[in-house]
Amino acid sequence: MPKSEPADGPPEPEAAAVDGVATEREPGGGGGVRSMVERWKMDGAPARARLVLRGAAWVFSLLALVVMASNAHGGSHDFNNYPEYNYCLGISVLAWLYATAQVVRDAVRLSSGRDLIAERKVSAFVDFAGDQVVAYFLISGLSAAAPVTDYMRQKENNLFTDSAAASISMAFFAFVAIGLSALVSGYNLSMEALV
Amino acid sequence: MPKSEPADGPPEPEAAAVDGVATEREPGGGGGVRSMVERWKMDGAPARARLVLRGAAWVFSLLALVVMASNAHGGSHDFNNYPEYNYCLGISVLAWLYATAQVVRDAVRLSSGRDLIAERKVSAFVDFAGDQVVAYFLISGLSAAAPVTDYMRQKENNLFTDSAAASISMAFFAFVAIGLSALVSGYNLSMEALV
Repeated sequence: MPKSEPADGPPEPEAAAVDGVATEREPGGGGGVRSMVERWKMDGAPARARLVLRGAAWVFSLLALVVMASNAHGGSHDFNNYPEYNYCLGISVLAWLYATAQVVRDAVRLSSGRDLIAERKVSAFVDFAGDQVVAYFLISGLSAAAPVTDYMRQKENNLFTDSAAASISMAFFAFVAIGLSALVSGYNLSMEALV
Repeated sequence: MPKSEPADGPPEPEAAAVDGVATEREPGGGGGVRSMVERWKMDGAPARARLVLRGAAWVFSLLALVVMASNAHGGSHDFNNYPEYNYCLGISVLAWLYATAQVVRDAVRLSSGRDLIAERKVSAFVDFAGDQVVAYFLISGLSAAAPVTDYMRQKENNLFTDSAAASISMAFFAFVAIGLSALVSGYNLSMEALV
C-alpha cells in the first residue's frame, strides 16, 4: 500500500513537531509558561541554593539548641528558670526538626528526582508555608529571649549569659537562612501556580 | 515537479503554526507569561485585597502606637522605663509610617493607574521587601515586649500592664495583616520577574 508509505518517511518530523506543540499547550493555554518552568526546574540552581540555605539553617538551629539546652549551671544559672529561654529552646528544636526533614526531602529530590510529597502544588505550598512560619517563629523566639539576657548582662557577664547570647545569635543566623529559603520557596510556589 | 507540490498544499497550516509559535516566543520566550500577567493585572483582585490588608495594618499599628505612647502613669508605670516597650513603640511607628505610605501608593495606583514608583520591577521589589521586613520587625517587637508584660501581670493587673498587653495585641494584628500583604507582594514580584 503506497498510501501508508509517507508515514514512514518525511512527514514524521512534522507530526512530531505538531505533537510537541500540542503537548506543550495542554495545561490551560500557558505553553510558554510551562517551558519556562521546565527550564527553570532543569537548571536547578534555586533548588541547590535552597538546599545549601537549609543545610545552614540545620547547623545553626542545632548549635542554638545544644548551646541553650546545655546552659544549666545550677541555681539561677539554669535556662529552665526563664520562660523566654524555654520558648527560644523549643523553637530551636522545632526549626531543627523542620530543617532536618526539608534537607532530607531536598536531597532525595535532587538525587533521584522523586519528591517525597507526590502532588507538586502541595509540595510547593508545604515548602513555602513551612519556611515562612518557621522564620517568623525563630525571630519571635530570639526577640523574646534577648531582653532578659540584656538585663542580666548589664549586671554581670558570666558563662550563663554568654551561652544564652551565643544561642540567640545562632538562632538569628538560622532565621536568616530560613528567611532566604522562604524567598526561593515563594518563587517556586508562584511558578507552580502558573502551570 | 511532483516533489514541490506538497509545499503549496497541506504543509501551509503547519508553517503558520510554526510562525505562531515563533511570535508567541518573541518577548524573551515568555509570551504566554505576559498574557497571563496582563490578565492578572486587569483583574486587580490581589491589588484590592492588598489595599484592604494594608488599611487594616494602618489601623492596628496606629492603635498599637497610640496605646503604648499614652501608657505613662508616673513612677514605674511609664513605658519609657522599659527598653522592650520603647522598641515595640518604635516599630509600631515604623509600621504605621510604612502602612501610610503604601496605602497612599496603592490608592493612587488603583484610582489613576499610575504608580508613584515608575519602574515596575523596582516597585514590585519595594513592595515585597518592605512588607517582609516590616512583618519581621513587628513580630520581633511584640515578642520582645511580651515577656516583661507577662512577668508584671503575674504580680498585678493594672491599667499600665493592661494597656501594654492591648498595644502588643494590636501590633500582632498589624503583623498578621502585613504578613498576608507580603504574600500578595511576593506573588506580584514573581510575576514581574517572569515578564
